[in-house]
Amino acid sequence: MRLFVVGHINPDTDSIASAIAYAHLLKSLHHESVIPARAGKLNTETLFVLKKFNVKTPRLIKDGTNKDLVLVDHNEFHQAIKDIKEARIREVIDHHRISGDIKTISPIPFESEIRGATSTIIFERYLLYEKPIPKPIAGLLLSGILSDTLILRSPTTTREDRKAVKYLSVMLGIDYKKYGFEMLKAGCDIIKHPAKKIITSDMKIYEGKHKIAISQVPIVDLTDTSALKPKLLEEMQAYAKQHSLEIFCLMLTDILKANTELLFVGNKAMVEKAFRKKSKDNYIYLPRVVSRKKQVQPKLLAVIG
Amino acid sequence: MRLFVVGHINPDTDSIASAIAYAHLLKSLHHESVIPARAGKLNTETLFVLKKFNVKTPRLIKDGTNKDLVLVDHNEFHQAIKDIKEARIREVIDHHRISGDIKTISPIPFESEIRGATSTIIFERYLLYEKPIPKPIAGLLLSGILSDTLILRSPTTTREDRKAVKYLSVMLGIDYKKYGFEMLKAGCDIIKHPAKKIITSDMKIYEGKHKIAISQVPIVDLTDTSALKPKLLEEMQAYAKQHSLEIFCLMLTDILKANTELLFVGNKAMVEKAFRKKSKDNYIYLPRVVSRKKQVQPKLLAVIG
Repeated sequence: MRLFVVGHINPDTDSIASAIAYAHLLKSLHHESVIPARAGKLNTETLFVLKKFNVKTPRLIKDGTNKDLVLVDHNEFHQAIKDIKEARIREVIDHHRISGDIKTISPIPFESEIRGATSTIIFERYLLYEKPIPKPIAGLLLSGILSDTLILRSPTTTREDRKAVKYLSVMLGIDYKKYGFEMLKAGCDIIKHPAKKIITSDMKIYEGKHKIAISQVPIVDLTDTSALKPKLLEEMQAYAKQHSLEIFCLMLTDILKANTELLFVGNKAMVEKAFRKKSKDNYIYLPRVVSRKKQVQPKLLAVIG
Repeated sequence: MRLFVVGHINPDTDSIASAIAYAHLLKSLHHESVIPARAGKLNTETLFVLKKFNVKTPRLIKDGTNKDLVLVDHNEFHQAIKDIKEARIREVIDHHRISGDIKTISPIPFESEIRGATSTIIFERYLLYEKPIPKPIAGLLLSGILSDTLILRSPTTTREDRKAVKYLSVMLGIDYKKYGFEMLKAGCDIIKHPAKKIITSDMKIYEGKHKIAISQVPIVDLTDTSALKPKLLEEMQAYAKQHSLEIFCLMLTDILKANTELLFVGNKAMVEKAFRKKSKDNYIYLPRVVSRKKQVQPKLLAVIG
């Protein structure tokens, strides 16, 4: 049996790091054919990380049909590769809400924990199974945690994430703050792309009674986005219409100041209710908001039901 | 916040042991108000176990309305207390298939592992958190594992279950085989009850396209069930009609010889297809079948879709 370990579409660094590291750990545990995979194009941050630690790009897989999969860093079908329902899901490791999408006939290992990054859970498994972590894998896991927690400053950050970062950065002899800023900056390239590309580069879709999308784009302190905003809103409008979205939010998150500018199209009343703020020109300023998962997504899901 | 740790309805020994032990572990970890609970009347096996290790009966809770719950040993709503949808599910620890019933807005710890018993997972958590296991708790966990794995002879038994049984029985100075038989025999009382009570005492409901029920009753070697069978089938027929069941199966499992006599009512073609055997008078003999979860439920779910 060939087992693919794969993260979500629009892969981010945590998703790719988790896939590569967990494939490595599984291989060292049971020696079967385990292949690290990715569900889409790598972003500039992840490319920077792979280059830094000299790790090969994982294999692109396009659909789930007839494949044996370990899902990392997601458990929602809307965030999974195409035809996920045609795959055999063998295991899940995640740190997001429980979607209820995954149903199995027999028991499978399914672990979701409250952690800032899936990479932290994978790190803990290495310790649990008492397996040595090779340096390139340690570099990936460190990067995954720093990326998802915005260098341990996101409110999603847990004690376990801090512990893992400490352990890994000491092991690698890396100043994690300095390295983290370098890495996040490398990821801020996305804002230089055309508006149409920016709005979906890190998009996640959620479905309750309504379908909503939340994208997040990291920016650095001095980025001027004023000229870009009307273009972004225009593209978001078109995308929302085409994909029947009730709400489409784009978080422009300043990774140094740790604030978010929220652009949105769609149901204005719901968005204002979610954040208890009036909007102006499809815009809400959210100070101290950096986490989609903890500070944006639950509020929106609570109002859309 | 008061947190209840509770297993499934028709509680068995693993479910009760897991609830009591995990409530104890959580209390020792974060000192909050954690209350071990049960979702129904205890069976004679579990009563025997609680008496043996001098542990108090956990508190009965009747519904989930407005309660904060940790679910152990189940993740299907049909196996949970009434109004489970009105509860706040804070955590899940289980060893069954993933039902997809549980959906949350924010991340929660959700762990399901391939183990013979939930008690084994709880045991592993004590080791993980390096917390001492008091002797009564060790006795409960040992009992939970021996009960769910039929003294390590069920095909659901894993290496981890064997390891836990070895550790716990050495710690307690108990001959686990001798104790296990005593315990299972104490549970064979159920067959002495009226047919109407027997058929639902350990029943689990599954819903796919159709609704099916599977009950399991342990019997010992010399139990003569020939006179009882027509009465059981009659009661099953009535129950299936009243609750719109497509199939109702009752496993009479000989715990010494490790065989099952399967009685069923409902869709005969499906049952025969599931086990690839012809039935005779609503009866199929299943040699070396002892596990509902591994040897009966997946086969039935596979044919009902």
